[in-house]
Amino acid sequence: MPDNPTLIEVTRGRLVESSHRGAVAVVDDQGRVLLALGDVARPIYPRSAVKALQAIPLVESGAADAFGLDDSELAIACASHSGDAVHIAAVRSLLAKAGLKESQLACGAHWPMSERATQELLRAGKSPQAIHNNCSGKHAGMLATAVHRGLDSRGYEQPEHGVQEAIRRILSEICGVALARQDMGIDGCSVPSFALPLAALAAGFARLGRGAGMTPERKKAAQRLMRACFAAPELVAGEGRFDTIVMHALGDAAFVKGGAEGIHCASLPGLGLGLAVKVDDGTKRGTEMVLAHVLAKLVAGADRTLAGPLDGEIRNWRGLKVGRLQPSPELEIALRALPRLNAAAAASAPR
Amino acid sequence: MPDNPTLIEVTRGRLVESSHRGAVAVVDDQGRVLLALGDVARPIYPRSAVKALQAIPLVESGAADAFGLDDSELAIACASHSGDAVHIAAVRSLLAKAGLKESQLACGAHWPMSERATQELLRAGKSPQAIHNNCSGKHAGMLATAVHRGLDSRGYEQPEHGVQEAIRRILSEICGVALARQDMGIDGCSVPSFALPLAALAAGFARLGRGAGMTPERKKAAQRLMRACFAAPELVAGEGRFDTIVMHALGDAAFVKGGAEGIHCASLPGLGLGLAVKVDDGTKRGTEMVLAHVLAKLVAGADRTLAGPLDGEIRNWRGLKVGRLQPSPELEIALRALPRLNAAAAASAPR
Repeated sequence: MPDNPTLIEVTRGRLVESSHRGAVAVVDDQGRVLLALGDVARPIYPRSAVKALQAIPLVESGAADAFGLDDSELAIACASHSGDAVHIAAVRSLLAKAGLKESQLACGAHWPMSERATQELLRAGKSPQAIHNNCSGKHAGMLATAVHRGLDSRGYEQPEHGVQEAIRRILSEICGVALARQDMGIDGCSVPSFALPLAALAAGFARLGRGAGMTPERKKAAQRLMRACFAAPELVAGEGRFDTIVMHALGDAAFVKGGAEGIHCASLPGLGLGLAVKVDDGTKRGTEMVLAHVLAKLVAGADRTLAGPLDGEIRNWRGLKVGRLQPSPELEIALRALPRLNAAAAASAPR
Repeated sequence: MPDNPTLIEVTRGRLVESSHRGAVAVVDDQGRVLLALGDVARPIYPRSAVKALQAIPLVESGAADAFGLDDSELAIACASHSGDAVHIAAVRSLLAKAGLKESQLACGAHWPMSERATQELLRAGKSPQAIHNNCSGKHAGMLATAVHRGLDSRGYEQPEHGVQEAIRRILSEICGVALARQDMGIDGCSVPSFALPLAALAAGFARLGRGAGMTPERKKAAQRLMRACFAAPELVAGEGRFDTIVMHALGDAAFVKGGAEGIHCASLPGLGLGLAVKVDDGTKRGTEMVLAHVLAKLVAGADRTLAGPLDGEIRNWRGLKVGRLQPSPELEIALRALPRLNAAAAASAPR
């Protein structure tokens, strides 16, 4: 496999102690590649970064309307949530409106990402359930779709189930890649994840923003889901987490969603652009820092509003500054070339 | 910086989803390099991997004898412990014998690595203290050394303090590199970490095993510390953790110690060999898997006794097998060449 460049350096003292390699793609919703740093053609699993795309059947099928789902229930269907009370309440509400039970969730259980929620479970002498899984909202949405469409609710997570088949078709159409069963891996929460090139994933996120190339129904569904996420960024991830912080900071300028193993995507509806980052080693610290720097270049004012995510200071247990996370020279050079390209693309893209 | 090869692949479905690059050095105690995969000349911070070397002044200065320290107190001085009751007890005992208080520890506080210990603190409504820091035993040993030598116990963690100066000289002598203040980074627990080439670090671990090139006093101190760790591997790390599992499995065939940011070292006293691994991205999963595979090649029978650490199966939240951590082709090829070299070196090395 070709070598991806170093994107992020982790310094300590005078040295680069660790580093994160990877690839970045910025594509507009006409499929034009504005930035391709590293191997953007190699297939990668999009994992939880595509939850908003995986939620499209929930709206497009009419299930969301039939069950009277509100923004918080749609946002949680797109979420990798922290398992705090607000998230659990939204998942329970979605399940209840669709006449479903927690025991039907096939995602498996893990301790909440939220320390507070974990501590509350521990204090109560409880163990985590499927509802605490960061994917429980996505699973609730898939279940609701199955029920609304009159499909078997059992096995909704299996690749041959109608809900997963619909998701495969939607991902194929939006990203412009014919995804097949052989491209499939099984995600942490047991649903399929279909591998596709990073550039295609970025193109899909570009189209998500303004509905380019979508049927009117799909465009309406996609925009309703993004609006739900913009209305409640704290539901999409959780307190103190990257996606929530960035969407709070940038408003509806950027829909941002990360996934496991170093995947992160963003859609910039105002610019008609999509971004996708994959860090080779799968570490979150590298991935989030790359995305923060790309967003800071593309979104006007984001270099100031994203001061938190862009702050790479590493402090030790006593609070001493011991190092920094910083963009590599390769990433800096690539980003310097970006604004000119971006301005040209934005001017020529349909509004 | 030259490109290090991929050492570990992380698969999902039919694809390599993530990968970990790095360097590996295997050196004998005469300084002969048996394996140099990747850049073994670039300086890296050894972090907590050298805690046993950092503990040498505690014994060599006579402090351990003067305070009547036993194996458990010496093992905890070499440890990155989990913060379980057994670890806290050993640190407290070391402090008490030297007439020291917990409040003198300069390592800063973090939640115990042990989930059980964290849950116990939470249930008791307590927050973590410096004693729960995985480095508290090392700090207690440094403090005891300072007190025994009549040095100020305040500032014992500062680079100019006599204890840290002694450690810098000892690391320089054992690893055969003149370490200077400009090579220094500050560790997570606030003591200096001096950068040195991976090959030199491996050579230092080779010499640690049989005391090659050491004064009789230093050899005695080093061997006493290693014996203490072999006597209680559960103190050096903790239940379920790599170093403890490996030392339980291999007995006194291998002293193994990891550090932050992807550093891991081993000393094989029986073979007079030292190993050092640095994974570029700093992730533990990559580093431990590399070391397990190198040990499995070098130590007779270790391919069976290390079945646990060598098992790369990745299971998701429902227990489904979704992928594997496995050695890269580059690492496999390098390891295939190793046993012949090793057999030759072991035959010619002094016993």
